[in-house]
Amino acid sequence: MLSPQVAGDVSPEAAASPLLRFLTQCHAEFRSDNGGAVADYIPELKKANPGHFGVSLATIDGHVYEVGDSDVPFTIQSISKAFVFALALETLGADHVEAVIGVEPSGDAFNSIRLRPDNRPYNPMVNSGAIACSGLIHKVKGSAAFDYIRDALGRFAGRELAVDESVFASERETGDRNRAIAYLLRNYAVVEGDVGAVLDVYFRQCSVLVTARDLAIMAATLANNGVNPVTGEQVMKPYTVARTLSVMTSSGMYDYAGEWVYRVGMPAKSGVGGGIVAALPAQLGLGTFSPPLDAHGNSVRGLKICETLSTHFGLHMLNRSGDVRNSIIADYDIGGISSRRSRLPRDQQILEEHREDVRVIELVGAHSFATIDYVSRRLAEKPAPLLIIDFRRVASITTAGGLLLADILRSHTAGDATVILAGIEPASQIWTTIRPLIENIASVRFFALLDQGIEWAEDQVIFRNGGYVAAKNSSHLKEQPLLAGLSDEELTSLAALGTPRSYRAGQRIVAADEPGASLFFLQSGMVSVKLPSGVRLASLDQGMEFGEMALLDGRRTADVWADTDVACLELPIEEFDRFRREHPKIGERIARNLAAILARRLTYANAKIDLLTAY
Amino acid sequence: MLSPQVAGDVSPEAAASPLLRFLTQCHAEFRSDNGGAVADYIPELKKANPGHFGVSLATIDGHVYEVGDSDVPFTIQSISKAFVFALALETLGADHVEAVIGVEPSGDAFNSIRLRPDNRPYNPMVNSGAIACSGLIHKVKGSAAFDYIRDALGRFAGRELAVDESVFASERETGDRNRAIAYLLRNYAVVEGDVGAVLDVYFRQCSVLVTARDLAIMAATLANNGVNPVTGEQVMKPYTVARTLSVMTSSGMYDYAGEWVYRVGMPAKSGVGGGIVAALPAQLGLGTFSPPLDAHGNSVRGLKICETLSTHFGLHMLNRSGDVRNSIIADYDIGGISSRRSRLPRDQQILEEHREDVRVIELVGAHSFATIDYVSRRLAEKPAPLLIIDFRRVASITTAGGLLLADILRSHTAGDATVILAGIEPASQIWTTIRPLIENIASVRFFALLDQGIEWAEDQVIFRNGGYVAAKNSSHLKEQPLLAGLSDEELTSLAALGTPRSYRAGQRIVAADEPGASLFFLQSGMVSVKLPSGVRLASLDQGMEFGEMALLDGRRTADVWADTDVACLELPIEEFDRFRREHPKIGERIARNLAAILARRLTYANAKIDLLTAY
Repeated sequence: MLSPQVAGDVSPEAAASPLLRFLTQCHAEFRSDNGGAVADYIPELKKANPGHFGVSLATIDGHVYEVGDSDVPFTIQSISKAFVFALALETLGADHVEAVIGVEPSGDAFNSIRLRPDNRPYNPMVNSGAIACSGLIHKVKGSAAFDYIRDALGRFAGRELAVDESVFASERETGDRNRAIAYLLRNYAVVEGDVGAVLDVYFRQCSVLVTARDLAIMAATLANNGVNPVTGEQVMKPYTVARTLSVMTSSGMYDYAGEWVYRVGMPAKSGVGGGIVAALPAQLGLGTFSPPLDAHGNSVRGLKICETLSTHFGLHMLNRSGDVRNSIIADYDIGGISSRRSRLPRDQQILEEHREDVRVIELVGAHSFATIDYVSRRLAEKPAPLLIIDFRRVASITTAGGLLLADILRSHTAGDATVILAGIEPASQIWTTIRPLIENIASVRFFALLDQGIEWAEDQVIFRNGGYVAAKNSSHLKEQPLLAGLSDEELTSLAALGTPRSYRAGQRIVAADEPGASLFFLQSGMVSVKLPSGVRLASLDQGMEFGEMALLDGRRTADVWADTDVACLELPIEEFDRFRREHPKIGERIARNLAAILARRLTYANAKIDLLTAY
Repeated sequence: MLSPQVAGDVSPEAAASPLLRFLTQCHAEFRSDNGGAVADYIPELKKANPGHFGVSLATIDGHVYEVGDSDVPFTIQSISKAFVFALALETLGADHVEAVIGVEPSGDAFNSIRLRPDNRPYNPMVNSGAIACSGLIHKVKGSAAFDYIRDALGRFAGRELAVDESVFASERETGDRNRAIAYLLRNYAVVEGDVGAVLDVYFRQCSVLVTARDLAIMAATLANNGVNPVTGEQVMKPYTVARTLSVMTSSGMYDYAGEWVYRVGMPAKSGVGGGIVAALPAQLGLGTFSPPLDAHGNSVRGLKICETLSTHFGLHMLNRSGDVRNSIIADYDIGGISSRRSRLPRDQQILEEHREDVRVIELVGAHSFATIDYVSRRLAEKPAPLLIIDFRRVASITTAGGLLLADILRSHTAGDATVILAGIEPASQIWTTIRPLIENIASVRFFALLDQGIEWAEDQVIFRNGGYVAAKNSSHLKEQPLLAGLSDEELTSLAALGTPRSYRAGQRIVAADEPGASLFFLQSGMVSVKLPSGVRLASLDQGMEFGEMALLDGRRTADVWADTDVACLELPIEEFDRFRREHPKIGERIARNLAAILARRLTYANAKIDLLTAY
């Protein structure tokens, strides 16, 4: 077994990446293996350079590792079968394709003319099934069929692909066995129309030029549920991808398929041009190129690279672990945490008393049937009339997970309960998966940000329990927490230092990084404290102060915007400083009030940290 | 297609769980399907009640759903083949077993006597391969072989399993075909020793009694990488599990295997007793029981349940998505965040200047080769001499991920860098996977808590940059942040109110929920502020105060413990209140200092929240 830490002939770039170093060392070791023979059943293929050897690995976040002759073009040959099968599924629909072509391993050679007892090809990975696929596409697309196929292969690879015309001519000239298969298929009405035209499509698709890098990206697109990780394009649907990987699993590596699943454990397909694609779902795509083939028709060095990579690291699609309990990163009611909207004491009191009416569940990671089932069981333990599920840190959700989630929401909202889904980006994979499944469920609301969802739920709780008189006109200074404990007389003399101000909705009242020259007491309306990036730190109602940090260090750290028309009292710090020197007892009281306000915020912040790190 | 929201004849329990409701409705629908016939090749099997129908689904966190006759016992039959193959791999080693039994689908019936051209059985899912497996175990365990097998099956099921002696007698009496296979195997030295004894082991293992619930848990153990999710026992190694699932994938469902992979997409095995096990890796295990079989030998109702479940929810092992970018939940240097150890201003200054020397990466979720590769690329972007990787929220790591991680740590520490691994529970799956791979790498340190790791790294930074004179004897009150700005005279008069105290290491100085009657100025030694649960909130050095929140609300919220021998000045709040009434300017200054201290802590807390929610 290769040891990756053995110093080898590696580039500085490779040295920095353990995986690239490993691939480089495998490449160096297997380069000298001269076993196998270049395919010779087509004269043009005999011309291949047996020394060529390229390896590429593409990750599902679109990083591509390359070693050796990874940019040398060669003909894709049988590897096209997997991708054209996928294209046929998407183009004609699964029912149509599955009615014409089976999915059972044949037990025969790839070029066998034997059909199933019902005269259908055994599967799309043998020539008869592949010709049937090309025939289906030709039936729909006519003379545009090949360009349609080449375009699809190009979307898998993330670039436009060319054809090797001399290989095409050679395939066509020597293709009598395939011609016989095609006529037999037409005899059984599996192929319809012009056999020559269908075969031209098939021969041409086998002659498309790819590199090991292309194959890696094509494989990574399959591993990534049909989304090309480099271009970001959804090339095929998840159903199509899963079924394509299925036939690759059972029939992709000729009569070495069982061994391959057992030893390597990645759906794969090889071609007589010397290429292999292998896709490890949700992990990576591998593309190798080395022309000499073994007795099964698989590239000798390509096989070794795949086997060594899988064996050394224990990569195998069935070697998987997971813990569904890790799919929830936080689960709390609003007693532990609140939105960034500051509340008046009376409303805060209502929220504390009814804290369990709002339950927040923050999900994380890739969600599946199993994780959503776990979420459903957690939910059932303690249902709440207002349930908030946050998706911001969810990478993806499978259709299975989405369907189960829809069932859960349907149950949960069947009574009086409301569900709030937060943090789902429009047009994201999660949005497209979930949206159509739940659009007819009443009582489900969407918020871009969790904080907005919590605020809305809090409003509901306050409103349902008699709080929140939004129409109140104005507030007296004695309601300001910062001025708590001051006598009416003291408040009057303090108020005399300030200037009444009014702002229109949408105006900026305070700008970040300005000197903090004054503090404000909000007398009517609502403001939001926001970072210049737009992140909301707090929303404040009448009766609250802002800019109060100026009392400490005289600098602003955030903007304050008027959400509504606003009336407030602006108190210059200079005036205030003079005042507190004259009235040190009042100054002491205000400083202590400020410390108490900060202590309460710190308690909330620490509670939030504990929640976020408790899982 | 079944619609789970259609009201059906469901129990209140089922109504609460969407998944149980779905299974209940499937069960109700397929119960009336009377297709297929009970197996009749053994007289005893003919006695099975064709109306029996049980379904069970076990999740990888150990929850078991059950519908219908899920607790009715029946004989396991061929389903035992998968588990006995696993047991043979563990008992004799993969090399030995794989040399004797192939892994390629046979294309023949399960009871075919035909062997491969090299006279080995095609695979362990056909009778010849299964008898060879039982023979291997018999060779090692002799007359204890059957109990050894029954014990292993029981560990998969999580309970002791019995044998149906009349089925065993019937199998043995009518087993001439299997007898022929066994003698043929001995002819080729695949089976050694007493053929009758080997066959008795085989017939008995087929006669073990299980329920649908047992099968679900057995399948979930395979889905859960070999760990029984109900008992928590690691029954088999991940290698064994992946290879067992491989042969189930390629050969588990007789000559319906290709269709099964394509349509259902879960490794599975059926038996003529009417059972099916199906395992969806990292998600769930399914067990079904219904005696009538179709022409392939698979349970008719069981097949329908599996197909419907897979189709309705889109469950398919190759339908997977993931986003490796979600594997890192936070990535920061110590400028944004610090340990809970408060630092003197000078040391804090050093940490700010060298903030980029410490990089913290917090991982989350199930880690694999792909996620660790992503971590390695993120690391390479900005290497730091002190790298902290937090595993507390990591559910698991595959061997592949562990090997790659070891490579990364080896590269990273090859220079002067130190790596700190935090939050790995001893004896956890992560610990057992990672520990042997990295134990010979120098410069890797382990800390139970991330905070401890950060503190240690901070100490390194301070020490390397000339700070932190730990041996300093004592500190003057003027260094206390709370008393900043007071004149020497003011400090002296304040000090006169206090009483010097000393505590031994390990003593509790302040208890949570006591009235906060005094505040403390730490003059030498170190203390930690902890919640009663043991969670550390802060560690304080000489020159810092504690109990200062008593200035605000007079109540303690945490314990304070002496970490070393400690000398401090205790200032009763009553005295302090009198003092500040007399000296309001000093009182105002101290209250403002307190607000400033809290404001700084709030800034850190908000930074931590932003980090934790930024991914």
